[in-house]
Amino acid sequence: MEQQYPSLLLERAVGEFSKLPGIGRKTALRLVLHLLRQPAEEVEKFAHAIAEVRNEIKYCKVCHNISDTDVCQICSDKRRDKQTICVVENIQDVMAIENTQQYNGLYHVLGGIISPMDGIGPNDIEINSLVERVEQDDIKEVIMALSSTMEGDTTNFFISRKLAAYPVKISVIARGISVGDELEYTDEVTLGRAILNRTKLEQ
Amino acid sequence: MEQQYPSLLLERAVGEFSKLPGIGRKTALRLVLHLLRQPAEEVEKFAHAIAEVRNEIKYCKVCHNISDTDVCQICSDKRRDKQTICVVENIQDVMAIENTQQYNGLYHVLGGIISPMDGIGPNDIEINSLVERVEQDDIKEVIMALSSTMEGDTTNFFISRKLAAYPVKISVIARGISVGDELEYTDEVTLGRAILNRTKLEQ
Repeated sequence: MEQQYPSLLLERAVGEFSKLPGIGRKTALRLVLHLLRQPAEEVEKFAHAIAEVRNEIKYCKVCHNISDTDVCQICSDKRRDKQTICVVENIQDVMAIENTQQYNGLYHVLGGIISPMDGIGPNDIEINSLVERVEQDDIKEVIMALSSTMEGDTTNFFISRKLAAYPVKISVIARGISVGDELEYTDEVTLGRAILNRTKLEQ
Repeated sequence: MEQQYPSLLLERAVGEFSKLPGIGRKTALRLVLHLLRQPAEEVEKFAHAIAEVRNEIKYCKVCHNISDTDVCQICSDKRRDKQTICVVENIQDVMAIENTQQYNGLYHVLGGIISPMDGIGPNDIEINSLVERVEQDDIKEVIMALSSTMEGDTTNFFISRKLAAYPVKISVIARGISVGDELEYTDEVTLGRAILNRTKLEQ
């Protein structure tokens, strides 16, 4: 049965909130009632931050990461290695890799992954601009850091074919058992790969 | 470790979202990135609905339910029974009871429940305004529809004492086993109450 709201304004706000992914009408109502209990200027700040981020955010014209400027902080950072590009699916992946503090090169955000099932082909994501960067800039290595899924493997394969004509090393982030994981509970495909791609023991 | 965001605007929007109850920074980021993929006018509508509901919503000056007008739709509806008041903790409870379509009287939204543990006393909720309504209007029955908890029982007791001086019937919504529940799995306090408060079998 359709829920009756005591107010049209309330109904509209709940409707807007429940358009967000993973937020149903019950949660949306809880969130709106929470906002109604906050000071008006806090709610104004919230609404303003949302409108502002949508209207004013830019995407780096080099790597397509989110940015406040035409070229992002990472691409314009002089201390970073400009000869290495790490290819990722989305912005969260850039943030995850930056958090490791183990990578000092540049990124390329594809904005998706080749997925015929979802109707996403090579031209729907930022592959051509990656090829252009490899062609025009002095890139020595492209590191593929996509998910270890069918779609990720397809995208790796497609990009490596596209880049085969250029003198650039193409690598893939290591697959293997997670740090802290028990061998016994690792799936056999991962374990098999981990044995094949074994590395020299650091002593 | 503090998460690094590639953009201050993004960080601000994520920060605002993650102030909402039950929304952590990961979910907040996911929601903001979702909004970034929506048309600008959709996001504008979302932000506007939020600011508008906070700035323009009213609370009914009679029953304290949410309303677009000074007196809510329920209180101003001529077809409703003006001699019965159902006392509830919050606005969601009004909506839940309205959904049953089994009640045709008025409401009184306390805006909380007496809870010494949380520092909420009788003067922090709308009890005095309830007593005023009973005193001034021609009220025949007050139905207490609070949760069946220690706090609910305390509030029932306090309000019934406050109203003892007035010629008004005070009732409590029925406690018993839920419709569809197996007797075997009903807790013994509920089952005991259900036996004590048995009703005549409708034939």
